Amino acid sequence: MLPPALSDKQTVPFDDRGLAYGDGLFETVLLRAGAPVLWRYHTDRLAKGCRRLNIPLPCQAALDATWQGDCTAELEVLKLILTRGSGGRGYAQPDEVTPRLLSRRTPFQPSIQRWQQGVTVRLCDLRLSRQPRLAGIKHLNRLENVLARQEWSDAAIAEGLLADSEGRVIEATSMNIFWLQAGQVFTPLVDQCGVAGTLRAGLIDQGVVAQRALLLDRLAEVERLWVANSVQGVWPVTTLLAADGSLLQRWAVSDSDPFQRLAHQLLGFA
Amino acid sequence: MLPPALSDKQTVPFDDRGLAYGDGLFETVLLRAGAPVLWRYHTDRLAKGCRRLNIPLPCQAALDATWQGDCTAELEVLKLILTRGSGGRGYAQPDEVTPRLLSRRTPFQPSIQRWQQGVTVRLCDLRLSRQPRLAGIKHLNRLENVLARQEWSDAAIAEGLLADSEGRVIEATSMNIFWLQAGQVFTPLVDQCGVAGTLRAGLIDQGVVAQRALLLDRLAEVERLWVANSVQGVWPVTTLLAADGSLLQRWAVSDSDPFQRLAHQLLGFA
Repeated sequence: MLPPALSDKQTVPFDDRGLAYGDGLFETVLLRAGAPVLWRYHTDRLAKGCRRLNIPLPCQAALDATWQGDCTAELEVLKLILTRGSGGRGYAQPDEVTPRLLSRRTPFQPSIQRWQQGVTVRLCDLRLSRQPRLAGIKHLNRLENVLARQEWSDAAIAEGLLADSEGRVIEATSMNIFWLQAGQVFTPLVDQCGVAGTLRAGLIDQGVVAQRALLLDRLAEVERLWVANSVQGVWPVTTLLAADGSLLQRWAVSDSDPFQRLAHQLLGFA
Repeated sequence: MLPPALSDKQTVPFDDRGLAYGDGLFETVLLRAGAPVLWRYHTDRLAKGCRRLNIPLPCQAALDATWQGDCTAELEVLKLILTRGSGGRGYAQPDEVTPRLLSRRTPFQPSIQRWQQGVTVRLCDLRLSRQPRLAGIKHLNRLENVLARQEWSDAAIAEGLLADSEGRVIEATSMNIFWLQAGQVFTPLVDQCGVAGTLRAGLIDQGVVAQRALLLDRLAEVERLWVANSVQGVWPVTTLLAADGSLLQRWAVSDSDPFQRLAHQLLGFA
């Protein structure tokens, strides 16, 4: 648990394995008045990712140093990248791994309009592949998300929903999904693909949300649908489009949204 | 087809998408007396990868500039990394993409001992996930290869063989595989996962090799087995181990190996 090589210049060299192979992890953290929100969940996920990839976890002081310092805005986003560092022979890691930790803070404003009025989402054509060894963690191999996000450019569409190769709805390109069914809020399992978001983890811990598989052809039947993450908060879905743009379902925005309220309490938005 | 931003300092910034998401491609090219071997196949694969990922292909002059210049050894390896460059909002790419091209040359010596005496390989526990959108191209999302390569540290084991989630043998961690069956040399299809190597492509073009699926439980029955790539050349497999280290099959090394000879002619080794 030595401190990693801190990249104070915010660059990585040619032989960094994060660049070469996506051999690393990242976190995107909401900072409120300079303090990280759901920080324990972010560090827990990072630790889980380090165990899965066999990357030494930086010490807590090094992780905390990424957000300590003067804040420039009431709300900021901290992005943290941890790579396995340099070296090795091809895919084989070096005998001594020295991870590289980088971070950047930027001012941020969530979209209150999307909280209140909801969003339009579309189904993506791309299907997520199933790889249990990489599922759940926030690793740097994100080409599936990049390709999915390329499927639309219409700014009126806020997110794209992703199903896996077996037709299970998993997540949105950068958010988790949640739905209401018979009085209970559910979120898909992310044990074969997808990212286990920190807001999702907090909501599961609080007993607000249960995990369940959701088949693509049942998606339009849910009573309510939300997309959410720990930075943007919770967006109610009002319109669901197919990949070809055709309408699949509409939901009314409710004045009372207990799920959004509980989630926003966790994030300090409520 | 503008020249990309050449990173002469051989670093990438924090917001480079190759680092952030593995959003890019790479090539590893054998240079002989400073000239690239199978260069057309490397640039063809890079162009195919750019089309798949929707990254602008650098102009030929920019690609050629990565290997032009004084050579430091009779044989070198050129590694070339092309990323989508910086910017965008999360997974969404920026309106104007300026790819970043990096390269590095290092002296190289292939293992003549492995050519002549053959190698021991093992089956990996990890199964490749199936993603046709990313199959065949040499993209920067290589965590599966990294995890597979972590499965062994015994220097007597030269490579690990990878099957996909449906039990088809696909490739080795950094090489393609080839086998002899009834007088014909075959190589697995790489349309669902795996990398379409340039030596493999050259051998297919010459009619030396045909593509065919190979189920894991038929692997030990093949008459001969080789692992090969455009840098290392062709290693005959003499010993195949299961993931637990138990022996699955042995093959004798032949004095006459027409497949190796043809492949090494393509690489200038013969």
